[in-house]
Amino acid sequence: MSVITKTITVRSNGENDMIDITRQTDEAIKASGLQDGIVAIFVSGSTAAVTTIEYEPGLKKDFPEMLARIAPSEIIYEHDNTWHDGNGHSHVRASLLGPSLTVPFKNKGLMLGTWQQIVLLEMDTRPRDRKIILQLIGE
Amino acid sequence: MSVITKTITVRSNGENDMIDITRQTDEAIKASGLQDGIVAIFVSGSTAAVTTIEYEPGLKKDFPEMLARIAPSEIIYEHDNTWHDGNGHSHVRASLLGPSLTVPFKNKGLMLGTWQQIVLLEMDTRPRDRKIILQLIGE
Amino acid sequence: MSVITKTITVRSNGENDMIDITRQTDEAIKASGLQDGIVAIFVSGSTAAVTTIEYEPGLKKDFPEMLARIAPSEIIYEHDNTWHDGNGHSHVRASLLGPSLTVPFKNKGLMLGTWQQIVLLEMDTRPRDRKIILQLIGE
Repeated sequence: MSVITKTITVRSNGENDMIDITRQTDEAIKASGLQDGIVAIFVSGSTAAVTTIEYEPGLKKDFPEMLARIAPSEIIYEHDNTWHDGNGHSHVRASLLGPSLTVPFKNKGLMLGTWQQIVLLEMDTRPRDRKIILQLIGE
Repeated sequence: MSVITKTITVRSNGENDMIDITRQTDEAIKASGLQDGIVAIFVSGSTAAVTTIEYEPGLKKDFPEMLARIAPSEIIYEHDNTWHDGNGHSHVRASLLGPSLTVPFKNKGLMLGTWQQIVLLEMDTRPRDRKIILQLIGE
Repeated sequence: MSVITKTITVRSNGENDMIDITRQTDEAIKASGLQDGIVAIFVSGSTAAVTTIEYEPGLKKDFPEMLARIAPSEIIYEHDNTWHDGNGHSHVRASLLGPSLTVPFKNKGLMLGTWQQIVLLEMDTRPRDRKIILQLIGE
């Protein structure tokens, strides 16, 4: 058993950008020498999140529209009254979705469904460089 | 320390079915020979999710009603315009809830609250066979 | 590689209380003797949750307001018809957010963003003593 840390960095295009990081996660496992285990995927930062989704153009629009219903950008947030950076809704959405996801792997392969990809969701109002930590634990 | 993979399969009755998988998870730990560790619970597929809930008939209705408020089935989803399978809302809900849950165990017992069960949530519009991976890591 | 279990207990002030548990989590890692690994943070109970957020007064109000939009306290829940404890909305919110969070650490330090804290969210309608399990796995 060992722990292997891999960090990947992606550049988002700003609010509602969804970036498929399945390939990089898979490559990190293949390169680790580990056969079986888990990968704890974690985005550092409070205005982004990770989840899985069928990565196709329709859902790339549908998913942010759901977020806009539950945390609209046009209402007042106390966060913005303090900081005036206009991203209160980004923080609320990110904390709802969560920064962490844990995916098992076996025989060096991620145990995902056929139509299930790992994605980073950008919720901040501007393009950002995002650091995603892949903490692999396995044998 | 070792990694043990157990897969459980359940048959759902279709949309909004909630299935208690606590017993199977507990049995997997008991059978593993491990004393202390974590179980990473992961559903492969993009229209189902795992979480914990007090598993009782009231909440089995209340929880899906919340999902229907934030991702109604009767609005238009771009996903359905592409695929015409009518489950755009299922995908949006599943990606919000997430496919992964990590629960600690100690002395071969899950560290859950008294009224806290582990459940699979079916969000697809038809009955499905669901494969849930239990990746146990411990000693 | 080893597993180390640490339990922290916090007293909440009741509904919508948000408690920063970053320091206790960090201290548990420092005291464990482990260098690199993950901490699986898990709240036992079905009316509380854990996530990360920028812990500042504005978001402490904004986040619960989002929860009130998606699971209002003033509508009817089947759960309350059964139990009459008036916390159906608490259960629905907690199951949506989820009880588990997994955070990587390296060189004895949590890999969080600068403005990203680990919090417990109380969603029950009364003050509660909350038990949070920190399951550390690492080397």
